[in-house]
Order: sequence, then C-alpha cells, then structure tokens
Amino acid sequence: MTEKIAITPSTHTAPPARFSHGVRKGDILQVAGQVGFLPAVEGRAPEVAGPSLREQTLQTFANVKAVLEEGGAGWDDVMMMRVYLTDVDHFAEMNEIYNAYFEEQHLKAPAAARTTVYVGLPKGLLIEIDALAVLG
Amino acid sequence: MTEKIAITPSTHTAPPARFSHGVRKGDILQVAGQVGFLPAVEGRAPEVAGPSLREQTLQTFANVKAVLEEGGAGWDDVMMMRVYLTDVDHFAEMNEIYNAYFEEQHLKAPAAARTTVYVGLPKGLLIEIDALAVLG
Amino acid sequence: MTEKIAITPSTHTAPPARFSHGVRKGDILQVAGQVGFLPAVEGRAPEVAGPSLREQTLQTFANVKAVLEEGGAGWDDVMMMRVYLTDVDHFAEMNEIYNAYFEEQHLKAPAAARTTVYVGLPKGLLIEIDALAVLG
Repeated sequence: MTEKIAITPSTHTAPPARFSHGVRKGDILQVAGQVGFLPAVEGRAPEVAGPSLREQTLQTFANVKAVLEEGGAGWDDVMMMRVYLTDVDHFAEMNEIYNAYFEEQHLKAPAAARTTVYVGLPKGLLIEIDALAVLG
Repeated sequence: MTEKIAITPSTHTAPPARFSHGVRKGDILQVAGQVGFLPAVEGRAPEVAGPSLREQTLQTFANVKAVLEEGGAGWDDVMMMRVYLTDVDHFAEMNEIYNAYFEEQHLKAPAAARTTVYVGLPKGLLIEIDALAVLG
Repeated sequence: MTEKIAITPSTHTAPPARFSHGVRKGDILQVAGQVGFLPAVEGRAPEVAGPSLREQTLQTFANVKAVLEEGGAGWDDVMMMRVYLTDVDHFAEMNEIYNAYFEEQHLKAPAAARTTVYVGLPKGLLIEIDALAVLG
C-alpha cells in the first residue's frame, strides 16, 4: 500500500476548496492548477503578482516549482504541463517567457510535453498551469 | 504484460463514440469526462439530472464515483480532478457543493489536486469532470 | 533511476517552445497537444492539413500516433485522450471521424477514456488532441 500525500508549500494560500495544491503517491506527483498568486500573507486574500502576462507567468512557474520541490521532485521530473491562457494573442509572449525561464533552470532531462489552450479564467488571471510529474 | 480494462458502470449510457467511461491498467485508472446524466434508461436518450449547477454537479460526482468503484477504486485514490465549468460565476457555488460533497464522503486520504477552467460544453451542460486515480 | 526520454518523430516540426512532442519515463508516455500540421518540410513554416475538421482530425491522429510509435507505444496503450474543439457544432462530426478512424486501427485493447471540451485555439486550427499512455 503506497501512501497518498498532500503537498502544501508554506508559500501557498489555502486552496479555496477541498483540494490539494499537489499530491504524491509513489512515483506519481500531480500539481494542481497554479496561478500567479504571490506567496501567502496570513490574514490577507491571495494577491496576483501583477497585471502583466510576464509577472503572472513567472509567479505561476514559481508556484508550480514550489509544489514539485515540496513533494521531492523538480522540473526534470515533469512529464506534462498544461498551460491555460485567456487570449490567443498571448501565445508568442508566453513562449518567450517559457523558453527563457526553462533555459535558466538548466534542466538535465528533456523538456516536458505541453498542451496550451485558451479558456476562461477568474477575473484578473491571464494564465494557469498544472503539471504531472513522474519520479524515480 | 498488464491488461488494459474498460470500465463501464451499469448506470452509464453508452459513450457517444469509441471511448470508454474509464480504463484501468495496473495501478492507473482514468475516468473519462463525466457530466450530469442520470442513470441510463434503455431505449431513452441520456437525460440531464436538472438545469441547476447543484443537480448537475452532484450527478457528475455520482457518475465519476461509479466509474471509480466499478474499476476497484474510490475517491481516496484520485490524484487529479479536472473540473470544467461554463461560467466563471459558478466557481463559488461549485466549491460549496464540492466541499460539502467531499465532507460527506469521509475520505481517509488527502484531497486530490484539481484544476478548474471555463470552457464551452454541449448545450444544457454546466459542468464536466474527469479524474486520474492511482491505486495500490 | 528511470530515464526520461524526449520523443521527436521525424515527421514533426520543431516545437514552438521548450517542450517535447512526447516524453516517456518508464511505462508512462505523454503525448503533447497535437494539431493538424502536415509532416514538416525543412525551411518551411508548419502547414495545416486543410481547412476542414476531417482533414485536421485525421492529421492530428496521425501526429499523435507518430509520437506514440516513436516512443515504443501504440493506440492500444492510450489511457486518455483529451480532445479540444473550437465549436460545439463539430462534436457529432468529430465523433464520426473518431469512430471510423479507430475502427480501422483494429485495436486489441479497449478504447481509451476521453474528455472533449470547447476552447479557443490558434487561428485556423479546429482541433487539438493530447494523450496519456501506459505501456507494459
């Protein structure tokens, strides 16, 4: 019997419902949809990193990474990233930010697979990302 | 060689195409996108549980659970839930229903991760949910 | 330590960012979101198979299959397909194409689970599909 473990980085606000920011069971780690919220400040509502796609994307990456690391994984273990944007016109800029970010991460393993689609998100949010990682 | 098994609860209408309501292979169980259809009645078209978000969400949960259980799993094994809503204004109400439902389920393991996005769905449907479970 | 391997079929254009068309680690193979691009021609921009849903869907299937096969898998190993359409009115036609295609593939294992939602995609694209496979 492998235990299912909730992953809750100290930087994260409590989820707005009964879900976990991440869960790990054996070698499988799933990161819930992350958005550009700044590290949680007790007693204050979640605050977005900024109005720009760049600010939100970089903060979203930081939030995904925090969950991965809290769960004993890293970007190299990520198999799939799902990127949700609100505007097709953001695709090129998101890719630029994405490429620059992952270049700086100096990954040893190949880049994860990815799907990008354009959906609705809560007001003020321009990007959401979730990730599936396989460790071991 | 691990066998891939189709999961077809008796309550479910036949899928409208060549896909399975769920599949299991070894410890991985994937539930296809479920909506608020009532248990199938032979010779009748699928019928939605009702026009409200509450009715549809609870029926959708029941349908996901039926697939999990038919496949030998339960909510405690779910790693990821993907919730598709059609209207950002439904987020708060969905979370209320979500929280109350899972409180009643008396889970022993931590809550699954979750991503919620806002998409288009076939006319009359307000919510769709799929789930990835890891057993063992 | 199981190695994470990038899957890059020779038919595929380079991804527009630092992601892989597919990755495999142990028994898990993830196919990135595929669209209806024709096999890559060096020095030319990616070209869509055609303006119709049929052309794009069949080419998308071919692209998913190419990633699966390059990674040592096939349709029989696919657990989950995520189908992204841009128009609810395309559902029935997509299902017809889907059913006919998979009938021709003569699968030995049960059909994969599936979720279909309606999202925005880059201009000119009517369908995108990604897939999770479990081998072994």
